[in-house]
Formats: sequence, structure tokens, C-alpha cells
Amino acid sequence: DDETLLLASALVMDAKGGRTLEYILGAKYVRSYNLYNQRYLRWALSFCIALDLALAVFESPSVPGLSVPYWGTMILEILCLCYFTFRLFHAFYFQYSKVFFRDAKNVMVLSVIILTMVDMIGYIIWINVAPDTHPVRWSRPLRPLFIINFPAGKQIRRAFRNIRRSIPDIMNVLVLFILSVLMFALLALKLFYRRNMKYPNGDSYFNNYLDCVWDLYVLVTTSNSPDVMMPAYDRNSWSALFFVVYVIICLYIFMSIVLATVYNNYKKNLKNEVKEAVFLKRKKLARAFDLLKVHRGKEEIITHSCWKKLMGIILPDRSAAYTDLLMKILDRNNKNVLDKKDFLNVSDLLNVPLTEVKDRKTFLEKHIPRIYNHRISEYIKIGVRHKFFRYIFDILILVNAVFIAVDLDDADWFFLSIFAVEIICKLYTLGGKEFFQRFWNVFDLLVIGAAFVASIVEKIIGDTEDERSILDILLVLRVMRLIKIFGSIKRFKVILQTLINIGPSIVIYGGVMFVFYYFFALIGIEVFGGYIKYYGYDNHGDSTTLFCGNVRLNNSDFYKNRYCKNNFNNFAQAMVLILFLNFAALITSGFVLVTNKAARIYFYAFHVCCVVIVLNIFTAFILEAFILEF
Amino acid sequence: DDETLLLASALVMDAKGGRTLEYILGAKYVRSYNLYNQRYLRWALSFCIALDLALAVFESPSVPGLSVPYWGTMILEILCLCYFTFRLFHAFYFQYSKVFFRDAKNVMVLSVIILTMVDMIGYIIWINVAPDTHPVRWSRPLRPLFIINFPAGKQIRRAFRNIRRSIPDIMNVLVLFILSVLMFALLALKLFYRRNMKYPNGDSYFNNYLDCVWDLYVLVTTSNSPDVMMPAYDRNSWSALFFVVYVIICLYIFMSIVLATVYNNYKKNLKNEVKEAVFLKRKKLARAFDLLKVHRGKEEIITHSCWKKLMGIILPDRSAAYTDLLMKILDRNNKNVLDKKDFLNVSDLLNVPLTEVKDRKTFLEKHIPRIYNHRISEYIKIGVRHKFFRYIFDILILVNAVFIAVDLDDADWFFLSIFAVEIICKLYTLGGKEFFQRFWNVFDLLVIGAAFVASIVEKIIGDTEDERSILDILLVLRVMRLIKIFGSIKRFKVILQTLINIGPSIVIYGGVMFVFYYFFALIGIEVFGGYIKYYGYDNHGDSTTLFCGNVRLNNSDFYKNRYCKNNFNNFAQAMVLILFLNFAALITSGFVLVTNKAARIYFYAFHVCCVVIVLNIFTAFILEAFILEF
Ligand code: NA
Repeated sequence: DDETLLLASALVMDAKGGRTLEYILGAKYVRSYNLYNQRYLRWALSFCIALDLALAVFESPSVPGLSVPYWGTMILEILCLCYFTFRLFHAFYFQYSKVFFRDAKNVMVLSVIILTMVDMIGYIIWINVAPDTHPVRWSRPLRPLFIINFPAGKQIRRAFRNIRRSIPDIMNVLVLFILSVLMFALLALKLFYRRNMKYPNGDSYFNNYLDCVWDLYVLVTTSNSPDVMMPAYDRNSWSALFFVVYVIICLYIFMSIVLATVYNNYKKNLKNEVKEAVFLKRKKLARAFDLLKVHRGKEEIITHSCWKKLMGIILPDRSAAYTDLLMKILDRNNKNVLDKKDFLNVSDLLNVPLTEVKDRKTFLEKHIPRIYNHRISEYIKIGVRHKFFRYIFDILILVNAVFIAVDLDDADWFFLSIFAVEIICKLYTLGGKEFFQRFWNVFDLLVIGAAFVASIVEKIIGDTEDERSILDILLVLRVMRLIKIFGSIKRFKVILQTLINIGPSIVIYGGVMFVFYYFFALIGIEVFGGYIKYYGYDNHGDSTTLFCGNVRLNNSDFYKNRYCKNNFNNFAQAMVLILFLNFAALITSGFVLVTNKAARIYFYAFHVCCVVIVLNIFTAFILEAFILEF
Repeated sequence: DDETLLLASALVMDAKGGRTLEYILGAKYVRSYNLYNQRYLRWALSFCIALDLALAVFESPSVPGLSVPYWGTMILEILCLCYFTFRLFHAFYFQYSKVFFRDAKNVMVLSVIILTMVDMIGYIIWINVAPDTHPVRWSRPLRPLFIINFPAGKQIRRAFRNIRRSIPDIMNVLVLFILSVLMFALLALKLFYRRNMKYPNGDSYFNNYLDCVWDLYVLVTTSNSPDVMMPAYDRNSWSALFFVVYVIICLYIFMSIVLATVYNNYKKNLKNEVKEAVFLKRKKLARAFDLLKVHRGKEEIITHSCWKKLMGIILPDRSAAYTDLLMKILDRNNKNVLDKKDFLNVSDLLNVPLTEVKDRKTFLEKHIPRIYNHRISEYIKIGVRHKFFRYIFDILILVNAVFIAVDLDDADWFFLSIFAVEIICKLYTLGGKEFFQRFWNVFDLLVIGAAFVASIVEKIIGDTEDERSILDILLVLRVMRLIKIFGSIKRFKVILQTLINIGPSIVIYGGVMFVFYYFFALIGIEVFGGYIKYYGYDNHGDSTTLFCGNVRLNNSDFYKNRYCKNNFNNFAQAMVLILFLNFAALITSGFVLVTNKAARIYFYAFHVCCVVIVLNIFTAFILEAFILEF
């Protein structure tokens, strides 16, 4: 009956999409579950999460020019929180309470929502009662937890699950590594402190234990090499032996071991995840089969008419011939019924992208067939598909590159037009669907299209300050065209194709790193914001603007190297700083000067989380992806 | 007969040892081959290779205090070359000429010997005719080729073969990477050069194309981050976007892809090598079987008496019972003869380390059994083997660590004695053989033994300058004892045990890196030696010693950072520089100032060879080793 079909179709769609929520098997609950999975509701969720995270740009301290009063961002935040709560309630509706509260993700989201509201109320009170005591929105670093814990971010959640399961093994290696660094630091202290050596800028050299630990840890990040070695090396050449041994053990060997451990765990977890996913999928399909089956003699089967009705719900747009074909593929015994073994393959089959012939006709072919199939048009199409068409345009790109290199910008209209003609020819020949399936065609369209738009804008704006910026953008787009040549050369095709194939996953892992960076950036903003300001280096200002607004930076390497714009004063600058903090631990020295040595804890935590763990997981992912593709 | 047995035993020993030389199967040739493989001849070869490489320390420009006149080092070098030539002739004697000259290794060694002699003759003429024109020994960088091409360095040769076979695939990725850097450099040039920005020290910023390429390549090595970004970032915050995109693509993604390619190739080559080795082994054993077999009916077998005679040559020290046991293990059908399938397992069986019971008695047990097996002695042995024995001494090491940290050195005699007692007890209980089989026992013996020796030397020397150095060495040894505690903690045991297991292979790969470093160090000495000298930084000297002896370094970052001792003026300093050049490209800036911008080519070549290729192969090796061990 209808309810059974509804339940079965929901289970089959779950198996096809790899969804894992466990809902109550009743008609109204399943309808609610289907509503929950509607595309527009999920996009609204992603939009709210993105908006919630983006609020950091507008909240104080904000990016200059994008400041919004606190009640403005709070209203937006409350709207997002309301939608999150609505999603939670919706999910609570169609799940058993026990199941709902046993799922740590729901508990997390609920906690974060509650904590955020507590924080907002507290902040409102704080900023109205004592606005000068630097009120803090301490719940902001928790926002990335929404990305991890909402079922919308399935792949990001898989990445985080992988990280979580790898932690015990990684911790063993990390603890061993840290103990090694501590031991070498003890050794360095004993070897060097008696000599009272100093760095060129006057700082004491290996004079107390915590400084030893810091300098040696930074050496592992290679940020202070060879400066950390020079004072001892100048005094006695044999000191180099200590640093060489340290670098070999703690950098070359240990960092490789950390990567090996991360990679090993990654492969193991991936294998387990695949097994779990397959198991869950079969469980759901088995359940759907049990709902739809009838007994025929000793066997349990699903009839053809039942199948038609099921497909009517799952694939409403497809023709009857299509769904019959699917059943024929599944029906291995050719008996016009599906037994359990046949049925268990249905989700894999549904995931195969089959197209009907009527899909393959281009838009133009469908609407103006007489012109499209005319002889001249056929010649054009043969010409476009011929390899010389590609060679000609590759040569044109090379010529364009030469023109770009020698700054002959006037000829650019010619090239733009030529490449636009190429795109139009391809669109005509391949049709919209096939055109957009190939990465390079989309790339061309975006680059040339953006170049056209920018050229037109530039002509309109004329001779103003903004013209320079538009010209820069145009320039970028022109040079990007060169990338296409790489794709044509055969020896690069494999590498680039693999890269394009794993592109979406790279974006996912980029998301993982973004979560961690966001967390550390917000903490940095609260702790270090405002201590260092960027005023330029003219040294003509009054005493408050000298030394980047903080006299403690006088004579520091941080000031002399002009790092002042690397600060935590707003979200954008904080993110840039964090990205370069990976391999520039010396940025921390400035913040240590303006606060105190405890600032190093921030760097230690950042480096262990974001560089040692997350970056290695990214590397492990690329290693595994490449091995699978080759 | 005897000759057949000789041939067969040689083939079996080849299969057992994995030797691959193809020699003429005649009695005198096989005898010559066996002589060639004698241990002392091979050790002499390794010694000569080491001596030949070590001459760089004594040749001009030499490490201060170790200078030897050129004819002295040349005499040693000629002696080494003579031995190499002798080895070549010896190998030529027992191989077919075609086979000998078809082997590229022999051709290489011959060429290097000839080139070295030409170089030496030319140098003798040069230095006597025109000694002031900086005579150059240009064949010295070729010396590492002896390590690679002599059959003695089998494992190093395998590592280089792996590198050689991986080059084509790695080149594809590298070329793509370099093209990307070139493209980004073009982009950077166009975006930034119009603005006439400058670095804080006055250098022009992204002003010409080659400088752009250099700065961006160094950014991939992370040596100039965030300095390379700051001028543009200060001017316009959006510039950060360019650098962020560049870092993500060229550093995170491309470097991971290079590692993935290297790792993929490494695994593939390893698999092929194992297959080849197995194939070669079986071929040799099959040939040995064909030599020894007799027909019995339809079958071809090896008789028991033949086996005994064979074992008499291969394992002359073993008892008849032992060799009979070996045959019983091989003889699966229990017919007291070996057929071909049985025989093919003989090399694997010979490689299994079996010990006879008489081996397992300790030295003391054999010689003073009455005292050794006495009741009190038994109690002592039980106590030593008990786990509390280990706990007590672990606690003692911890206490010792505390004493070291707070500098209570006087108590050290107490600890040294206690640990010596521990070693003596273990030696007594386990016996020499079992004691030396465990890594940690050997480690203890070395550390405590060296500490005793150093303490005694210190007492003898008394209060002199050298006392300080001895005290430092003592210190190092004390702290090293702490490493033992790591080995006791269970969660680290696995990691450390894996490390110890792959330790020998790590040394082999260290050898590979050493070969590359030696090559680049010698080239650097010839090209850059003498331009920068280290005179201290007092600034009180005359004009020749100011600015490290080269006025072009005035106002340079190289001089301000006091990098002057990082120079190519002798072999030891060159090797230290090379090791830190990996992640300190700014050292190159000093050499660019004192020569010209072509000096960057040296860094490019060094970085691509030693960091991008060799370091990644090292990482791939550790990845694979860890995965196999877990
Ligand atoms: Na670095």
C-alpha cells in the first residue's frame, strides 16, 4: 500500500544517498524526514552556517569599512540560531528521543546554541554596563562546530571523524616527539647557558629552559634556521653537531614518522568507513525489501508492478521504459521478479549516471533541427571536433602569452574575440550539457566571460583609481588562460585530470583546515587584538603611532622586518596571519614582546593542531587519492 | 665431483646472499669469485671508498688544523684508485668481457678512475706552473659515484636505482610545478612592478622577472615568509589573496603531489625489485640443482650424500646433525632425497637464523658451570630477569634526570656505579650473545662505558680548557640515559621498536643524502670558496676583515644576521651549510651579493635534487616501512 511504498522508497533513497539518520518508520514521520532532506531546506542550512561564520568579518573588531553595530550582527546571528533550532526540532520530530539524544552531534549543536545565547545575553549586559572593559564574545570560536555537526556537511564530518579516530595513535608519536624536544632542550641548556652567548639583536641565547624549548621547537618548523645555530657555531664549530643531530632526529625522522602514522591511520579508517557504509546501506535495503516482499512458494520476491510503483516515487521523471530497463539489469535470473540478492544492488545501480538518448540531443538540435543538421552546419561541427581546431587555439594562446609578457595590451581585444568565437563554436557543436561536463570548457567560459565583463567595465570607468584594479583583474584573467595549454600537453594530462577529479575533495579538506583556522583566528582576535597596529613606517607620527602603536616593539626584529600588518586586529588580517604562521613562527615574537611569553602557548597549540595534524591529514589524503587514481 | 660442488655451492651462496654478478662457470673462475667476495676484501673496499671521500677534509681548502699538502692527499687517493682498479680487474677476470662491459656500473667506475687521473695530472701541472690562479680539482665531486657503483653498496645502489626509475614520473610533476611558478611569477611581475615597492632593506620588490621567480620559489621553501608578502600587503590588503592562492596551489597541493608521485613510484619499484630478486634467486638455484642432480627413474633428485658434501662447503662449521636437520626440513615428501621444488627453498632456509643448543649456553655456563648453576647464582639470575629489576632501574634513571636538571653533578659517580652494576648483572645472567642481541643493552653499555672513560679522563686532565669539553661530553651521555625510559613505556615501545628495526635502512638513506650533499658541497667549495670569511663581528679590524672580508656584504641581511660562518671555505663548513640550506634559502642571498645572481642556479639545482627529490624519497621510504611494520 501507499505507506509501505513511502517507507521503502525512503529507505532506498537513504541507501542511494548514503544517509544514516535513523527515523521512526511511520508515514507521517517519513514524510517529515523527506521534507527535512529537501534540497532547499538543506541549502538554507548551508547558507545560515556560512552567514553565521561570515559575521566575524562584520563584528568588532571588524574589517575596515565593513563595520556593523553589534545589535545588527546579533540579529542576524539570532536568525541563524533560530533556523538551527528549527532544524534540530524537525530532526527530533521524526526520530526516537533515545536515538536523538544518543547522537553526540545533536547534543553538540544544542550545547553550542545554548552557549551562544548565554554569551549574547552576557555580552549585551556587559557592553551596556561597562563598555570600556573590552567585552568579549567568547562563544564565537565555537561556530565551526555547526559545520561539523550538522548532517549537511557529510564529507567534512567524515574528515573530522577520521581525525578523531586517528588521535590516539598520533598522540603516542607526538608525545614521544615532544619528549625528545624536551630532552634536547635540556641538553642545549646544559651545553650553552654557561657561555652567556647572545643573538645578534641582543636577546639571550639558550639561557633558560623554556627559551630553549621554544627555540628548538621553532627549529623543527624551520623558521629560525640557521639563526638559532649561529651564536654557538661562531663560538665553537662542534656545536653544529648538536644542531645537525637534532634536525635529523626531530625534523627529518620524527616528522616523517608523524606523517607515516597519520597516513596509516587514514588508510585504516577509510577502509573501516567504507565497510561501515556498505553495511548500513545493505541494512536499509534489506529493510526496504522486507517491507515490499511477497512470498511466492519458498521464495521472497518483489513483483514487477511493485517495482513500477516504487520507481514512480523514486524516479518520477523517468519513462516506464527506463525503469523497466533498470529492473532487467537487476533481475539476473531473468524471471521478471527481484529476489533479495537482486534488490540489494539497487542503490548502486541508481547511482550510475545513465542518460537516455533524448537527453543527448543538444538544445539546438531539439528546437531547430533543420538548420542544425544542415550540411554546412555539419561541416562546422566536424571542424570543431577535429584536433587541428585545438592545435590552432593552443598556438593562439601561446602567441597571447608572448603578447602578455611584452605588455602589448592593445591586442587583447583581438584575442578576447577569437577565444569568444571558440567558445561559441564549442557551445554550438557540443550543446549545453556536454559542454558543461568538461572542466576546461567551463574554465574557458568563466575566464573569457569575466574578461569581457571586466573590459567593458574598464571602458566605462575610464581614467580613475579603480581602473588600475580592474586592469589588474583583467591581467590575472589573461594569464590564467595559459593554464589551458598545460591541460593540452599529454604528459601533464594525467596529473591534471587526477587533480580535477580529486578537486572537490581538496575543497572539503580545505574546509577542514578553514574550521581550524577560524577557531584559532577568533581566539587570536580576542587575546591579541589591538596590541599591534599598522601605521606605516614613516616614523614621523606622534608617540602613539611609533613602533606600530606599541613602544615595546622598539628595536625588535618584528618591527625591523615590518611585520606590523600581520596582526589580529580584524578577521581578514587574522586569517592571513594564521595562514603564514605555519612557517613564520617569528611572527609570534612580536606578540610575545607586547604581551608575555605565554603567547607562545598559542603558537604551540596552533602548530600542533593545524600543521602537525591537519596538514599531514591533508597530505595523507592526497597520497591516498593519487594512489587510487593511478 | 669437486668442481661441480664448488660451482653449485657458489650458486647457492649467491642465492642466499642475493648476489647478482654473472660469472664464468669454471673452477678457477668460481674460486676467484669466492675470493672476490671474501669479507676482508670487501671491507678493504669500503675503507678505501671512505678514505677517498674523507680526503676532502684534508685537501685545500682544508678544515683548519687538518691541512695536508696536495701531494700527500694525492698519494692516498692514488692508493685508493689502485685498489679500485684492482677490484675492477679482479671482477673482469671471472666475468665474460661482454657481460663486464655491458654493466654500466663497471663503465662508470672505469670512467671516474680515468677522469680522476686526468684531473690529478692536470692539477699537478697547473699548481706548479701557475699556483696563483686558483687551481681546481674538478673530479672530486665524482667520488660519490664509487659508493653507488661498486657492488659493495648493494642497498645504496637499490636506493639510487629506485630514484633513477622514478625520475620520469617525477619530472612530469616537477615540470608542471615549475611552469606554475613561472606563471605565477609573470602574474606577480605584472601586478606589482608598476608600483615600485621596496623591501625594508631597500632591495627592489618584484621588479624584474627573474627576481619574481626567485622570490616565489623561495616562498615554496617557506624561507622568506611572510617577508615576501609584506610590502605588497602593506600597500593593499588584497595582495594577500595572490600569495594565499600561490601558497595553497604551489606549496600545499603541488608539494603533496610530488610526494604522492614519489611514493607511488617507490612502491611500484619496490614491488618490481622484489620480483626481480626472487626471479634471479630461483634462476641461480635452478642452475645449482641442474649441476647436482641425478636421475632416479623419471625424477631428478639430489641425494643425501650430495647434500652432505654441499653443506660441507657452505656450512663447514655446522655438525652433521645440523645439516641433516636442514635436509629433513626441505624434504617434504620424506623420501630422504630433494627434488627441484624442495631444493628451491634452500636459500630461504639458510637465511633463517637457527641456533643449536650449544650456542645458547652462556660463556660462563660453559666454563664455570658449577658456580654458574649454583643456587645463589640462580636466585641472582631470577632477580635480574624479574620485572621489578627493570622498574627499580627506571626509577633510578628518573631520579638521575632530576639530579641532572638541577645540576647536582657530584652524585653522578653514584649513578654511574649503579648503572654499571646493572650492566654487569645483565651480562652475567644473559651471557654475551643474548645480551648483545637487544638494542637497549648495547645502548646502555656504550653510554655508561663512555661515561666511565670520560670521567676518568676528566679526573686526569684536571682543571684545563679541555676539561670543559670533556664535561660537555659527559653531560650528553648522562642525558642520553633518559632515552631508555622512553623505551620502557609501553605506548612508545611499538614506535621505538619499529624505528630500531628500520634503523639500518634509515642509515642507508642517510647515505644516499650524504652522496648528494657531498656532490653539492664540493661544487660549492670550488665555486664559492673564499668569498666570505668569518672574522667575528667586532668591527675593529682593518678593511680586509670588515664585513666578513667582502665589502659587498656591507648593509646586507646576510651580514646583519651574522651568517658569515656559513660559508664554503672548507669541507666541514660546506656540509653544515648545505644541511641548513634546505630551509634557509636566505643564505644564498649572501653568495649572490659576493658573486652574482647566477649563484641562484646552485640553490635551484640543490633544492630540486636534495629537497624535492631525495627528501621525499626518504619520506616515502619511512611511510612504506611503517606501513609494513604495523
Ligand atoms: Na622555513
